Amino acid sequence: MSLSLSRFLIGRPIANREAESRKLGVFAGLPAMGLDGLGSAAYGPEAALTILAGTGAAGLATIGPIMWVILALLAVLWFSYWQTIAAYPNNGGSYIVAKENLGTIAGLLAAAALMVDYMLNVAVGISAGIGALTSAIPALHPYTLWLCLAVLLVVTVFNLRGTRESGLAWAVPTYVFILGLGSIIAWGVWQAMVSGGHPHPVVAPPAVAQSAGAVTLWLVLRAFASGCTAMTGVEAVSNGVSAFRDPPVRHAHGTLSAIVIILGLLLLGIAHLAQAYGITAMDQTQEGYQSVLSQLVGAVYGRGWFYYVVIGSVLSVLCLSANTSFVDFPRMCRLVARDGFLPAAFATPGRRLVYSVGILFLTVGSGGLLIAFGGITDRLIPLFAIGAFLSFTMSQAGMAAHWFHALRGRGSAPHAPGGAYSSRVKLAINGGGAIATGLALAIILLAKFTEGAWLTIIIIPCTLLLLRTIRRYYDQVDAQLLQGSQRKLDLRNHAPPVALVPIKRWDRLSRKAIEFALRLTPDITALHVTTLEGPEADREETRLKEEWRELVEEPARQSGISPPRFMLIASQFRSVVAPLLKGIKYVEEHLPDRPVIVVLPELVEGSWWGYLMHTHRERRLRARLLRYGGAKVGVVSVPWQLQPSEPAQGIAEEEPAQAEP
Amino acid sequence: MSLSLSRFLIGRPIANREAESRKLGVFAGLPAMGLDGLGSAAYGPEAALTILAGTGAAGLATIGPIMWVILALLAVLWFSYWQTIAAYPNNGGSYIVAKENLGTIAGLLAAAALMVDYMLNVAVGISAGIGALTSAIPALHPYTLWLCLAVLLVVTVFNLRGTRESGLAWAVPTYVFILGLGSIIAWGVWQAMVSGGHPHPVVAPPAVAQSAGAVTLWLVLRAFASGCTAMTGVEAVSNGVSAFRDPPVRHAHGTLSAIVIILGLLLLGIAHLAQAYGITAMDQTQEGYQSVLSQLVGAVYGRGWFYYVVIGSVLSVLCLSANTSFVDFPRMCRLVARDGFLPAAFATPGRRLVYSVGILFLTVGSGGLLIAFGGITDRLIPLFAIGAFLSFTMSQAGMAAHWFHALRGRGSAPHAPGGAYSSRVKLAINGGGAIATGLALAIILLAKFTEGAWLTIIIIPCTLLLLRTIRRYYDQVDAQLLQGSQRKLDLRNHAPPVALVPIKRWDRLSRKAIEFALRLTPDITALHVTTLEGPEADREETRLKEEWRELVEEPARQSGISPPRFMLIASQFRSVVAPLLKGIKYVEEHLPDRPVIVVLPELVEGSWWGYLMHTHRERRLRARLLRYGGAKVGVVSVPWQLQPSEPAQGIAEEEPAQAEP
Repeated sequence: MSLSLSRFLIGRPIANREAESRKLGVFAGLPAMGLDGLGSAAYGPEAALTILAGTGAAGLATIGPIMWVILALLAVLWFSYWQTIAAYPNNGGSYIVAKENLGTIAGLLAAAALMVDYMLNVAVGISAGIGALTSAIPALHPYTLWLCLAVLLVVTVFNLRGTRESGLAWAVPTYVFILGLGSIIAWGVWQAMVSGGHPHPVVAPPAVAQSAGAVTLWLVLRAFASGCTAMTGVEAVSNGVSAFRDPPVRHAHGTLSAIVIILGLLLLGIAHLAQAYGITAMDQTQEGYQSVLSQLVGAVYGRGWFYYVVIGSVLSVLCLSANTSFVDFPRMCRLVARDGFLPAAFATPGRRLVYSVGILFLTVGSGGLLIAFGGITDRLIPLFAIGAFLSFTMSQAGMAAHWFHALRGRGSAPHAPGGAYSSRVKLAINGGGAIATGLALAIILLAKFTEGAWLTIIIIPCTLLLLRTIRRYYDQVDAQLLQGSQRKLDLRNHAPPVALVPIKRWDRLSRKAIEFALRLTPDITALHVTTLEGPEADREETRLKEEWRELVEEPARQSGISPPRFMLIASQFRSVVAPLLKGIKYVEEHLPDRPVIVVLPELVEGSWWGYLMHTHRERRLRARLLRYGGAKVGVVSVPWQLQPSEPAQGIAEEEPAQAEP
Repeated sequence: MSLSLSRFLIGRPIANREAESRKLGVFAGLPAMGLDGLGSAAYGPEAALTILAGTGAAGLATIGPIMWVILALLAVLWFSYWQTIAAYPNNGGSYIVAKENLGTIAGLLAAAALMVDYMLNVAVGISAGIGALTSAIPALHPYTLWLCLAVLLVVTVFNLRGTRESGLAWAVPTYVFILGLGSIIAWGVWQAMVSGGHPHPVVAPPAVAQSAGAVTLWLVLRAFASGCTAMTGVEAVSNGVSAFRDPPVRHAHGTLSAIVIILGLLLLGIAHLAQAYGITAMDQTQEGYQSVLSQLVGAVYGRGWFYYVVIGSVLSVLCLSANTSFVDFPRMCRLVARDGFLPAAFATPGRRLVYSVGILFLTVGSGGLLIAFGGITDRLIPLFAIGAFLSFTMSQAGMAAHWFHALRGRGSAPHAPGGAYSSRVKLAINGGGAIATGLALAIILLAKFTEGAWLTIIIIPCTLLLLRTIRRYYDQVDAQLLQGSQRKLDLRNHAPPVALVPIKRWDRLSRKAIEFALRLTPDITALHVTTLEGPEADREETRLKEEWRELVEEPARQSGISPPRFMLIASQFRSVVAPLLKGIKYVEEHLPDRPVIVVLPELVEGSWWGYLMHTHRERRLRARLLRYGGAKVGVVSVPWQLQPSEPAQGIAEEEPAQAEP
């Protein structure tokens, strides 16, 4: 079986009618789409605390208010995306929402921002996870890049198997992470309560610096901007509503709520316990570095086996947060491709009903980033939240416009059953969301501009431009194909074509091709190109001509058919394409009203090893003839199946069930 | 220009008639085919001295006699291959010589041995060179594998450009190596002479151990077996005679002699100076290791700039000794492929008149070896000389049989102008060569069996078996194609075929396909597969049917042609292949004497980026139809060139000159 390896890795092909059973509920949806969001809990608070690290206890005191602002923003996003999902049950990603309500350019801007963000997310997520792993086990450090690529490969293969598979595969680490970290936080909060706000740490974190820098507004803003990375991934559900099973909106709402509530509780708990235990961020470049979560678990619980379970699940979730990109990126690319802004292949479902081209594109792109940065992609983190917040803002603004149009009575807003009052509330929520995320975006841009955010500001418009260029290409092709297509069929002349049949020797393959050609036209010339010279060539020539006379010309004459011609071309050239093109040109000049068909006998192999045994000259020949043969040529492939063909089996393999047409 | 990158790397395509100017003289032939042989001077003596290292001065004294035996063997090989080249001016590799005189199995055995040896040679040569480089510059050590792969890539690209290019590119290091090391040796020998055999070293080599192990016969045999690696590569010229320009035999003789004489002088000089200066092999795993050549150059000349020039050229020549394999491996594979023992692609010349498939196969195989062994392939060295000596022996035995047959008057030995006496001398030389190389092979096998030679004894027969299996496959295909091919053309029935035309929408592409199909048969059915559902599908259906009636059926009726049918298939399937196969099956059942043609309208793109923009559904469709459509189907590709096609330019690009047919 030629496909056995890909089959083992990717699984059997899936028919359309099975699509429903491939879809997600909340339980599988949370790991499939929530890993990015939940994983943010591991780096968002740490990123904020890192900015505040220099300011000692005074800075630590500000983490509470910062986290409340972030939680408020998270709540706004929750309500906004809840409405988006309800209004766009058929994949209401930022692209669709912005495109339909703000125009194509806005939609493409959102799409470009998300594309960049998803690709960065894969590289950053995997390298962060592997980075944490190698700092836990320094012996693995030399293999950083290989480990990153291995994780990328595993995530890719699981996603090629299908979205549902990946959701189920990642369920274990996800739920271990939620339950493990959740119970640590709950126990810590309980300890803090019973000890009156000053719990005794099991393993004490390093003391908070006493004399330290001042807490300025700029510092707090920067801490907020870094902490906002905790929100990336919340949009995932709204981009992938169509991946949920019926009723998709309810399952999507459930998944969104689960992600937001769990993420909120985790963030709140981490911020609270950081203050209670006096945990600050440590310098990652120093010896003995420990992440905030590692300090926190140590302080609450100590270093028993459960510590390793929780930290292990954190690493897994970080690595697998890449998975969210793999679920959403191909789906978004499909929508963009269906509108003609990406190559059509992005919209073609693969054997397992996933958009394989998008998945592989994401793998290659993020793999390239990982290789380019040697598996250490710290520098990409500042570039990272911008795309997400840009698409948040576009999406919110789009929804606000949606309700505004509904209120004004124009545009199509069929999903506003509550009337004007309801629409006004919704406008307020989404408008507020747009302003809040826009403000956050402005702060992030300002705070991170010099750290690399400028690069994003260049890349996103370039991507946008590329998308528009692709669309322009398709428009031109369409114009060429549709121009004058409403003219009636031209039937003034339908003389049969002139057939050219290149043959290598006289065998059943050649005979079949000649017989086939005789069904199509009485005007046939067989071409034999010989590269031999001297007496060998003469012998060969004589033999071929004799065979032709006896086996072709005679029976043709007896049947009253004009006998096919035989032409022997002595050529020192390796390829038969030049004489064929000459023949085509000759016909064009001398018989301008006759098209030309080149009849190519072709050996067809079923197995991959048999495939390797042949040079597939006919394929190259056909490609060259189609490319250079001009408008009047057609290429007829006449197969010779080396193995008996079994259509039923062959098709069953690719399409397990057949609907009646 | 779509091919600009490959063009930049590999160069413009070359026509057959240019082949002569691509060929080698002695000056370019020496670097192209002699690097393996000459490079052996760098490791042969060292390998022998390493075995003797434990025996101190007594062992060192035996290196002279051992080297004389090796030189005698080298002289025998020189005369033998001289005769082989003269007798087989059209590439008299071991494969041809053994096959023609000893039978196919013997030929395949020689071929398998050489294939294994060439592949090992690439990996061992490159890793030895890079190993020497990294021991000179320890900072490069972590990059061993990458450096190896980089050298492999460079050698590959140069060889894809053409044999002559690679010969010229490696000329500088080769001639620097010959002149540099030659003048050092000459100066050293002069010093030794004027000092009465005890020259004063400029930089003294480490003292030779005084109390040491005994010199046993077994030890001397092992040293001889290791020293024999100095002879690998001598066969290269005889395998590649056709790469030389007219008259090939004279140029090949010149190159062979140059290689053997230079190699002999180098070996002799190195052995002499090793004794004169008391240089022994050092332990490579110890700190401060220096190769024999490095000690020798230091002792004769010191550590000035010239030392670095000579040592640098040694490193280059070691790395580039891989090049010999790249010249000979594809040529030998071509001969084997022409006899049907390797896939036909090995015999197809590429754009630059080199056998690209063989080159790439060698690159992938040796690259795999390098990666598997992390760029350190010391363990492969014992496996290495066996293939070479096995092919030496087969080649010599074949030539002996050749002269023997000539004497007995049977067989074809047209190249024996000197009559019986001459043939008898030649028989003696080649027979002696066969016995000598056979003995050496036996000693090498014995001495290296436990070090890994057993592996070669397994791999070579497996390769042989694979070659025979491939041939059996081709024989089966041939039998199938030729069986009954001498029957006359069957013309009892030539009713036109039934045409099926899958169309996506009504545009110029579809119209052209229908018009083309009408030239071939009056019996046409267009198929449109829709995956839409609900009112959208209905609108689409109505529109398509109206267009069909107005634009196709009406004009057909007016011209008195039976109008093509239109079939709309609602399918939840993604592919159009299932309905088409159903249609084919239907025709087969209901119209058993009519073949089926599927007319595929196909967009043809000229540029690579345009190529990426399309899904190329037609290609997959055509492949599936040819594979599963059964014996009565033919696929007609009707192109629509998006760019105006320019046949002249398109062909000029690939084939600069056109011969008149």
